[in-house]
Amino acid sequence: MPLRSRLYAAVLALLLTVTLSTRAQNSQLKTATQQELDVIKVLLAQEAAWNKGDLETFIQGYKNSPDTLFITRQVFRGVDGMLEEYRHNYPTKAAMGALAFSELEVHPLDENFAVVIGKYHLDRNKKEGGNTNGIFSLVFEKTDKGWKIIIDHTT
Amino acid sequence: MPLRSRLYAAVLALLLTVTLSTRAQNSQLKTATQQELDVIKVLLAQEAAWNKGDLETFIQGYKNSPDTLFITRQVFRGVDGMLEEYRHNYPTKAAMGALAFSELEVHPLDENFAVVIGKYHLDRNKKEGGNTNGIFSLVFEKTDKGWKIIIDHTT
Repeated sequence: MPLRSRLYAAVLALLLTVTLSTRAQNSQLKTATQQELDVIKVLLAQEAAWNKGDLETFIQGYKNSPDTLFITRQVFRGVDGMLEEYRHNYPTKAAMGALAFSELEVHPLDENFAVVIGKYHLDRNKKEGGNTNGIFSLVFEKTDKGWKIIIDHTT
Repeated sequence: MPLRSRLYAAVLALLLTVTLSTRAQNSQLKTATQQELDVIKVLLAQEAAWNKGDLETFIQGYKNSPDTLFITRQVFRGVDGMLEEYRHNYPTKAAMGALAFSELEVHPLDENFAVVIGKYHLDRNKKEGGNTNGIFSLVFEKTDKGWKIIIDHTT
């Protein structure tokens, strides 16, 4: 592993230890489980893809199914419609802006499902709509293609 | 079963058949499973309790745990805090108004977890804050006390 990657991994591990510890009731440090790491990695990959203007890779965080739900002020169904919606709302890299997730918390349900809650901030030129931020809850399923979002509720 | 209850049960069964069918991809009617009925019943009990001004019963739809999450513009943790928040925001029966859930959809994850999405409408006097409505997604867990909400994201 090159130094840069090792550093990144160490920072990530530290970040996860600290982040996940905030939900421990007894304020003891809690080491992230493999499940928690796997789920968080999907979100970090989405964040990186978004910030490259790569919606196709971003959307791979979702399960490629007509049952996948995206809930905002209304309910969108299926990844195909979701991609069109994103392309319509974010037609250029400038319109996409710079995305940052924060306060990520993994709440494992069982070995096949987990919920992640967190916040997002979009840093964007005023003429592109300006900065926005909000809160989300995501239901993840462990699929044969890895952990994927099956329900996204973002506000 | 008294006639009134039988009628109610029949209407409920029909309602569920129709409601749940809307999510079937092949537009065939789909009969609700026991899991789906059990989860919907929790929400109907919450609706009835709310409309009697009975917050203590309403809150019993949630898992009595400090880990239960209520997400709106921020994240609230634990049922005790949630009840206080409700009492503060809805101090009287008039302030609670008349609650109606609609477009309920049960999305079973596995035998122990399910997600319900739906809409709510609150009918209320203008001086009490007026009508409001919104959308929600709820994660349910099958506990030893029945199906309970563990994560509520309402907007």
